Amino acid sequence: MTFTSLTGVIPPVCTPLTPDREVDVPSLLRLVDHLVAGGVHGLFVLGSSSEAAYLTDGQRRIVVESVTAHVGGQLPVLAGAIDMTTPRVLDHVASVTAAGADGVVVTAPFYARTHPAEMMCIRDSVHTKLPADVVLELAADGVVAGLKDSSGDLAAFRRVVTGARDGGVSGFSVLTGSELIVDSALAAGADGAVPGLGNVDPHGYVRLHGLCRSGDWDGARAEQERLCALFGLVTVGDPARMGPGSSALGAFKAALHLRGVIDCPVTAEPQVPLEQDEVARVGKYLAAAGLL
Amino acid sequence: MTFTSLTGVIPPVCTPLTPDREVDVPSLLRLVDHLVAGGVHGLFVLGSSSEAAYLTDGQRRIVVESVTAHVGGQLPVLAGAIDMTTPRVLDHVASVTAAGADGVVVTAPFYARTHPAEMMCIRDSVHTKLPADVVLELAADGVVAGLKDSSGDLAAFRRVVTGARDGGVSGFSVLTGSELIVDSALAAGADGAVPGLGNVDPHGYVRLHGLCRSGDWDGARAEQERLCALFGLVTVGDPARMGPGSSALGAFKAALHLRGVIDCPVTAEPQVPLEQDEVARVGKYLAAAGLL
Amino acid sequence: MTFTSLTGVIPPVCTPLTPDREVDVPSLLRLVDHLVAGGVHGLFVLGSSSEAAYLTDGQRRIVVESVTAHVGGQLPVLAGAIDMTTPRVLDHVASVTAAGADGVVVTAPFYARTHPAEMMCIRDSVHTKLPADVVLELAADGVVAGLKDSSGDLAAFRRVVTGARDGGVSGFSVLTGSELIVDSALAAGADGAVPGLGNVDPHGYVRLHGLCRSGDWDGARAEQERLCALFGLVTVGDPARMGPGSSALGAFKAALHLRGVIDCPVTAEPQVPLEQDEVARVGKYLAAAGLL
Amino acid sequence: MTFTSLTGVIPPVCTPLTPDREVDVPSLLRLVDHLVAGGVHGLFVLGSSSEAAYLTDGQRRIVVESVTAHVGGQLPVLAGAIDMTTPRVLDHVASVTAAGADGVVVTAPFYARTHPAEMMCIRDSVHTKLPADVVLELAADGVVAGLKDSSGDLAAFRRVVTGARDGGVSGFSVLTGSELIVDSALAAGADGAVPGLGNVDPHGYVRLHGLCRSGDWDGARAEQERLCALFGLVTVGDPARMGPGSSALGAFKAALHLRGVIDCPVTAEPQVPLEQDEVARVGKYLAAAGLL
Repeated sequence: MTFTSLTGVIPPVCTPLTPDREVDVPSLLRLVDHLVAGGVHGLFVLGSSSEAAYLTDGQRRIVVESVTAHVGGQLPVLAGAIDMTTPRVLDHVASVTAAGADGVVVTAPFYARTHPAEMMCIRDSVHTKLPADVVLELAADGVVAGLKDSSGDLAAFRRVVTGARDGGVSGFSVLTGSELIVDSALAAGADGAVPGLGNVDPHGYVRLHGLCRSGDWDGARAEQERLCALFGLVTVGDPARMGPGSSALGAFKAALHLRGVIDCPVTAEPQVPLEQDEVARVGKYLAAAGLL
Repeated sequence: MTFTSLTGVIPPVCTPLTPDREVDVPSLLRLVDHLVAGGVHGLFVLGSSSEAAYLTDGQRRIVVESVTAHVGGQLPVLAGAIDMTTPRVLDHVASVTAAGADGVVVTAPFYARTHPAEMMCIRDSVHTKLPADVVLELAADGVVAGLKDSSGDLAAFRRVVTGARDGGVSGFSVLTGSELIVDSALAAGADGAVPGLGNVDPHGYVRLHGLCRSGDWDGARAEQERLCALFGLVTVGDPARMGPGSSALGAFKAALHLRGVIDCPVTAEPQVPLEQDEVARVGKYLAAAGLL
Repeated sequence: MTFTSLTGVIPPVCTPLTPDREVDVPSLLRLVDHLVAGGVHGLFVLGSSSEAAYLTDGQRRIVVESVTAHVGGQLPVLAGAIDMTTPRVLDHVASVTAAGADGVVVTAPFYARTHPAEMMCIRDSVHTKLPADVVLELAADGVVAGLKDSSGDLAAFRRVVTGARDGGVSGFSVLTGSELIVDSALAAGADGAVPGLGNVDPHGYVRLHGLCRSGDWDGARAEQERLCALFGLVTVGDPARMGPGSSALGAFKAALHLRGVIDCPVTAEPQVPLEQDEVARVGKYLAAAGLL
Repeated sequence: MTFTSLTGVIPPVCTPLTPDREVDVPSLLRLVDHLVAGGVHGLFVLGSSSEAAYLTDGQRRIVVESVTAHVGGQLPVLAGAIDMTTPRVLDHVASVTAAGADGVVVTAPFYARTHPAEMMCIRDSVHTKLPADVVLELAADGVVAGLKDSSGDLAAFRRVVTGARDGGVSGFSVLTGSELIVDSALAAGADGAVPGLGNVDPHGYVRLHGLCRSGDWDGARAEQERLCALFGLVTVGDPARMGPGSSALGAFKAALHLRGVIDCPVTAEPQVPLEQDEVARVGKYLAAAGLL
């Protein structure tokens, strides 16, 4: 894989689980087929939306090996290396690379509030979510091949996009992790998007990407607004019973289950599962978006 | 003034001060002339960028009376009513209305972390920066005529824009307070912008607004990127010596002084003033943007 | 009043209101009598627990004038000067001093995240809630006569106490604003306490202070634990309906009403009032503490 | 080990590293001997002060096995199981138990802002840093044997202490993780302390504990103030160059190196190392405290 392939729609792939919380490989491969059929340009396994933080080392290896073997090079497979600190992240980088990933997505260390200088020390590896100037320095040095920004702060995102372009950094991709402002990010110069909701409606995000690329901004806005409405499904979980992460991941998996893609909608423990009426509301969002 | 006039570029007007920190009325009126000559569509006095929080009640009254008398109804003049809590804000609402303001801009009470229900109680007055659903409810009830959002969160902003449109709320304006994503906000359906940097370059923001309205998104993006570069002037103040607010307001005023609009660049105390080399850097930003 | 009088129990005095939210002067004076009868060593009006942030300038003046006239110099009366920024705070300092306050309590400006240097500029007036070294510098210069710390961070509090003592700063009082760790603060060297709950049970805090002063730490701990249990009344308000501030102030006033001290338990708008069953739970706390 | 042994001074043991960042077992065992000679009542390995978050799984195993073999049951050895989420934490619980730890210290999952209900799901394992009522429920069920609180919030700490006592929960230890308020915490009823600074001066903390137990509160206060002054060494690192964690851990290790306990003061990467003049300042703190 060359760096220039980090463009377009690259969904973070959910990790289907069995009722006893093991990786459900057949469902995972059906999900991959569903995304490929939707026209996505790459896959990103072991990200936050993949519940990677909840997966043991053994489960992570199964995910990467299964997916890379299944897609066989048809499209790039990136893998996350989420952990608390640099030494531990580097262990994961070695593991996912050995398991066949085409690229690695790492996050800035989150264990401690850290000084920028401390973050720079991990430059032996790829790396994301840093101040714009740090990112651009890493990009210029060829240390990182891209940035995925999920902060929703379009002004900061724009600073990286124009900084990379004006600084003549080549082969550096800037991707938005937001589901809700993909049109704005592409208009501002982003190379692509990594939308969690892309699991549920890959066709919609591929269509949105195409409309932006062809300069049809009115059409893009309409498609984006349809996807924004669909994204409301992440709020079905009762906030008195669960956190927003449990609600969102539970809703993505419920939607994939309702659409017949995966066998079982459970999320990893100790996340709180959705109740029946909440799943029913997910179904209404799917129907309203024309997906059932 | 009808509600429908809350569109276009409505800069928050800086408050020029004399060296002994009284309102410099002649400079204030020259600034108003500079903005009107730039083609702005309205004026917003006593906002954050006007240092309203640092002005005594007497100084606030002078500002509103001077500006409204000077513009004489040529374009709408909005006035802020910034204070800690509802009863005190209502006193300011009465004052600025008596002083001639065409509309009032209030903020959600910030004294205490407050429950949404407590914010709803101020519905006798206009009001901003609330959860999207609260804003839309106030809009539907005719309580508020518009929203200025400066959070930089375009996804939330979009929810208000589409919510107002789909809910059939008429006469409700949605304005962005960001300097950096005006093109994206207008593309998403905003009615206008309230950019602090519009003090320094009103012509630029009026041009940007026009390009967006005519659908020239490539031209808009280029103009927006020029303004984003100019906005770098807010960072000239040494963070070891001053807070970001002092740096930004000091830089706006230094720029207006360098451009010959106001007599004295001082900011209200206890904000820290810029030093000579920092002012020189403001000059370089102006030159790079073609404004000197 | 000399600075050395800032010791002992100095409750922040609640501001009783009439049903239509005007200052209820007769109830206010009965509350003052209740506190004086309890043996408190000073009074602090127009603090946070007095809902000062919700009182208009006119209401604030009534409070200070009524209380200072009533106590007639029997014990010191401090008055708060809460506002957003230095210029506005200085206006209040002038007002409360003119109205007869023996001392003024100011807060660090909270309108903007501010650089320490900007806070130092307000040294023409007394001032609280700053980094330990800034406080000690102000104390050494004679700018401030005391510090009230409500952060609950006993380690930081201790740094000020020992810093003032070791630095030979004389006439500087260090007071805790916490209801819950008065014994620990006095053991660590504090000069006194400013407990909001002291409105409800002044005798208890005066007793606690005496036990600490006499070195009876086991007795102090028992009294403190009784007051900690009583403090649970601040949680009676349903968090789904109101913020914690509304619950706490509503509970203090409900307790004063139930104890027959004030005529009407309403709080300033837009704070949410307690419901009947919540007031009943306040009564149970009072009964358990032996106060009904 | 029975639960009742979780009392007294139980320092979190630093992890000495070699210049190439492997565990320096001889230095680690000398540090253990230093602590045991100081009279500590237990040892806690793989905590935050042990840089556990920066240690790979292999390094963690070496630490637990070396220390438990060396102390041979003389005093209890607790081990941390720090990771992002419950499934991963449970893997560490199994590992450290197999490696010989007498007890396990876990933290509330920190990967995502989580709902209390989600935290309750990890009740198959011991567990800390939760709302007081959740902790007390876990204690009553026998799920957890103790709580280490490092928040510095003495009022909340006290709620757990009195809640456990009044609720008749037996065999539940409440320990403070603060270095600075050990006397206050013990006075309020704590069972012991887990002070990182105890690595540097175990004798001091053991002495402080003894003074508190014997009711000599004036002596305790003097010893605590000496330790508070010594704790200033955590601030030697230049905040423009490193985060507070790097400064504190670097200073602990520099002090142990200067006192001749460990061979090499390096911290795990990417933490920023102290410079020579900063280490010299650590020496001055040691000298002032009578430790050189």
